[in-house]
Amino acid sequence: MKKHNFSAGPCILPQEVLKKASEAVVNFNNIDLSLIEISHRSPEFVAVMDKAQELVLDLLNLKGKGYSALFLQGGASLEFLMVPYNLMRENGKAAYFDTGTWSAKALKEAQAFGTVDIVASSKDKNYNYIPKDFTISADTDYVHFTSNNTIYGTQFKEFPKTDALLVCDMSSDIFSRKLDFSKFDLIYAGAQKNMGPAGATLVVVKDEILGKNNRKIPTMLNYQTHISKDSMFNTPPVFPIYVSMLTLQWLKDMGGLDAIEKKNIAKAELLYNEIDNNPLFKGAAAKEDRSNMNVTFLLTDESKKAEFDQKWKEAGISGINGHRSVGGYRASIYNAMPIESIQVLVDIMKNL
Amino acid sequence: MKKHNFSAGPCILPQEVLKKASEAVVNFNNIDLSLIEISHRSPEFVAVMDKAQELVLDLLNLKGKGYSALFLQGGASLEFLMVPYNLMRENGKAAYFDTGTWSAKALKEAQAFGTVDIVASSKDKNYNYIPKDFTISADTDYVHFTSNNTIYGTQFKEFPKTDALLVCDMSSDIFSRKLDFSKFDLIYAGAQKNMGPAGATLVVVKDEILGKNNRKIPTMLNYQTHISKDSMFNTPPVFPIYVSMLTLQWLKDMGGLDAIEKKNIAKAELLYNEIDNNPLFKGAAAKEDRSNMNVTFLLTDESKKAEFDQKWKEAGISGINGHRSVGGYRASIYNAMPIESIQVLVDIMKNL
Repeated sequence: MKKHNFSAGPCILPQEVLKKASEAVVNFNNIDLSLIEISHRSPEFVAVMDKAQELVLDLLNLKGKGYSALFLQGGASLEFLMVPYNLMRENGKAAYFDTGTWSAKALKEAQAFGTVDIVASSKDKNYNYIPKDFTISADTDYVHFTSNNTIYGTQFKEFPKTDALLVCDMSSDIFSRKLDFSKFDLIYAGAQKNMGPAGATLVVVKDEILGKNNRKIPTMLNYQTHISKDSMFNTPPVFPIYVSMLTLQWLKDMGGLDAIEKKNIAKAELLYNEIDNNPLFKGAAAKEDRSNMNVTFLLTDESKKAEFDQKWKEAGISGINGHRSVGGYRASIYNAMPIESIQVLVDIMKNL
Repeated sequence: MKKHNFSAGPCILPQEVLKKASEAVVNFNNIDLSLIEISHRSPEFVAVMDKAQELVLDLLNLKGKGYSALFLQGGASLEFLMVPYNLMRENGKAAYFDTGTWSAKALKEAQAFGTVDIVASSKDKNYNYIPKDFTISADTDYVHFTSNNTIYGTQFKEFPKTDALLVCDMSSDIFSRKLDFSKFDLIYAGAQKNMGPAGATLVVVKDEILGKNNRKIPTMLNYQTHISKDSMFNTPPVFPIYVSMLTLQWLKDMGGLDAIEKKNIAKAELLYNEIDNNPLFKGAAAKEDRSNMNVTFLLTDESKKAEFDQKWKEAGISGINGHRSVGGYRASIYNAMPIESIQVLVDIMKNL
């Protein structure tokens, strides 16, 4: 049966990418060896790493602008620690937007390094909106925010203007829309949404901001270590990087962020329109802050729950139960999700 | 052509494991979804993680002995940092054996945390032996060593007796031989030798040794974080863990460490006997300290180099060039390497 995979992450990837990745596990590039049993220093894998890094900077329009693209390990959670280690001065200060569970974890980690100004928070309403009023003080080392809040289904549409460094966790919406990425000084993202399988973390950093905070940084937590070794200081996560490279190439071939943004807007509108027009459903997030990646919604009539759940299960839909922090449903409609799968869901909602 | 993969790591894995892993990338357990696009919290993946952890403790004969098995990220290089963070007291002291490049990196990282006693070193002879004379002082928090030195082809056959905690980097020989693993308090290993693909790090730790050094440990670097969440504090590296589980099951099915140790000894003897009996070759490491995983050797007559290189390349051998620190050749003969491949190499050496 055709499955419609609405998982929040790890999540759907392009079918052609999965097929190529599967082949590479037994015979990579017709070298009669598996991708996962060759040296990461072999010309074959070095070419994969180079291509993946090039595609990142190309898709984000950051080529030749002084940025490095790194494929690290540890997920966004390790970045919560690496960011203050690399960017906060001793007794320094950072500004954090508290817009969800992951933002809160990020700022908690930074508090061990200096002063954390929580410049805005939407915790008062269970993180169902993006706060718009904030002041960033002049002596701030960097401003940190989470561009898309996977659990709550909210997304920053505009980003703060400030003289401080701009740091963004884009784990769940990177490569989904056009932005002026050169306004950011450091972007990080776990691979397992729009990029690839779990086990790689993308860091895109402006080289010139590093090495300035006078901290003694452990080798593996220092971005400069990884830049100086071209993301090969130690053995990188070979398979996740390869699949990320394939996915980025798939994205480039379809027209890059211009093309995918249009598709993503159309997909999100299809589902949000049904939520807004169907009296049986309501959205969980404030309308103007709705995420185009994670659509959170609730039944207005809980007596319909058993019927709704049965129908989407029968249709081959999976991964649509809401996170326990919000309840209801969450349809994650990342880049690789075809609009046809969303139509299947919408049709079920219509006929409920 | 049949390839004989002598790579030092990432390295050869069992063919049947590669086949199953390849299938799982398109359709995992016949659920019509890829392993890499389902939630790590799905029952299907939780079963993989549970099984992998169980197999580790089972194979090491550590079940019910107070140990946890964790699958983390960052490679052994991140463990170089996590070990002192979790085990060295403020102003504490650790003893390190300096037996190769990786040992030296490990002790360098620990020096940021307190006093590091280099209790023994074989650096004087380009790390070609395992030092046997050492004294460990009574106030040592832990003793650290690298059981197998991949680059130099040396291996500890016995381990120091001490009241301090015993910490061992077993990246390149774990699961290759029987040992009394309960003598160790913490074992770590990058997956990419005898366990699976790059991107997962195994940590086996005795629970009771943790939480005692009075340091404020960053969340992601604290072993207790990962124990409390059963290695799922954040999204784990799903594919590397799955392949590790398959490889460990393959090992268990063939008879575990008893069976593999016998095979590994026979394989190593076949190759070392040829090195010792053939006047054209000599071993690079001291005989009594030779590794059964990485066999380092040199030509005695460099004029034969072109002919030898041509012959092994024609035979489908790959990954056999020595590391630049030693020169010559290095045949890595990990668990999954069949003795038939070693025979191919030995026959070429014989007929040179």
